[in-house]
Amino acid sequence: MKSLDVRRKILADNEAAAGRLRERFRDAATLVVNLISSPGSGKTSLLEASVPRLQSELKVGVMVGDVATDRDAQRLSKLDIPSLQLITGGSCHLDARLVDIHLEVEPRLQDLDVLFIENVGNLICPTSYDLGEDYKVALLSVTEGSDKPLKYPGIFSRSTATVLSKIDLLEYTNFDLEIVRQEIRMLNPNCRIFETSAKTGQGIESWCEWLQSCLAQKRTPS
Amino acid sequence: MKSLDVRRKILADNEAAAGRLRERFRDAATLVVNLISSPGSGKTSLLEASVPRLQSELKVGVMVGDVATDRDAQRLSKLDIPSLQLITGGSCHLDARLVDIHLEVEPRLQDLDVLFIENVGNLICPTSYDLGEDYKVALLSVTEGSDKPLKYPGIFSRSTATVLSKIDLLEYTNFDLEIVRQEIRMLNPNCRIFETSAKTGQGIESWCEWLQSCLAQKRTPS
Repeated sequence: MKSLDVRRKILADNEAAAGRLRERFRDAATLVVNLISSPGSGKTSLLEASVPRLQSELKVGVMVGDVATDRDAQRLSKLDIPSLQLITGGSCHLDARLVDIHLEVEPRLQDLDVLFIENVGNLICPTSYDLGEDYKVALLSVTEGSDKPLKYPGIFSRSTATVLSKIDLLEYTNFDLEIVRQEIRMLNPNCRIFETSAKTGQGIESWCEWLQSCLAQKRTPS
Repeated sequence: MKSLDVRRKILADNEAAAGRLRERFRDAATLVVNLISSPGSGKTSLLEASVPRLQSELKVGVMVGDVATDRDAQRLSKLDIPSLQLITGGSCHLDARLVDIHLEVEPRLQDLDVLFIENVGNLICPTSYDLGEDYKVALLSVTEGSDKPLKYPGIFSRSTATVLSKIDLLEYTNFDLEIVRQEIRMLNPNCRIFETSAKTGQGIESWCEWLQSCLAQKRTPS
């Protein structure tokens, strides 16, 4: 079997597992958000800022993927929600089978209103692996530069929303909000864009309201 | 052939191509530095700050890898050195064969004192692909957080030097220089660590002096 065939088979196997996950999440009426960004864009910080706003009304849980260490899960364990660290052992992305295996053994994650899957810090590879999520959400911190959407079109064209993070550092950078908005919209005209700071709380309420509206939409009989 | 076998074969093919590149670079007495970091850590900015200090005495060139766009090469074209954009078309890393093919058709990159290879923005996958370089150099911007070395041990254990970038933003973050130094040294006791800012110029001279000493060492008859 050639390299390209193997890659196709890996992706086909992932699609099958993602299909099963999607059914499971539909049956549980759980909104699932797959958070994807570069290392250090602030995925865990976004969750630390968002969960306290959501957990009074909703049952929230987190799966967090990393190549090594359980540092993110340790941070998330301080929130009063179920969280689980998935160590990929070198793999650069989460895949649907890994998520499925861990869900099976973690009943606390099986009956949620919202499940966040914090992917491995990588703006490229996780994009290709469907995890049965409702939405992919990209994070881009303003310190990374405003040239990123067209340089990494895969994730920005497939994300339902983009969270611009660390907006409190905007004035110390040459990040151009208008250009970034234009480029994201060029790739993905309907993408929701949130300007946030986990530090000051800016934009976190809008982001949480959007999540709640997504959950309500998922639970509306069609 | 199973997925693991295919991966082994891909890496073995890459090693063979990297071996040929290493011979070529040895014959040309060119110092080759493979720059690896997350998207937006400042690889291109580091080159923009370094090249003007090096090019009065040395012939410097750059190959730059990206998933899409030639934005980095456009920035680098303003420096008066040969530069070449390699578009990977979705692949998350540069490989030795791609570098070799492009070197063949670009004589201006064949007779250099220093060749920088700016890898695709990705802290994980490029680590596994030898490009025939003398040294891997990791970049980590202070805005990414000081938890990164142990979270991404592959690159920080294999890099001869780590460039801490955007040090001018240190006071606005909770980045802990001492912890990062300790973690890098834990993975890699001899790693050189440079604290730099492409914006203010801090640390750029030490970094350039180190490159010059590496070149001199490469050219010292053994």
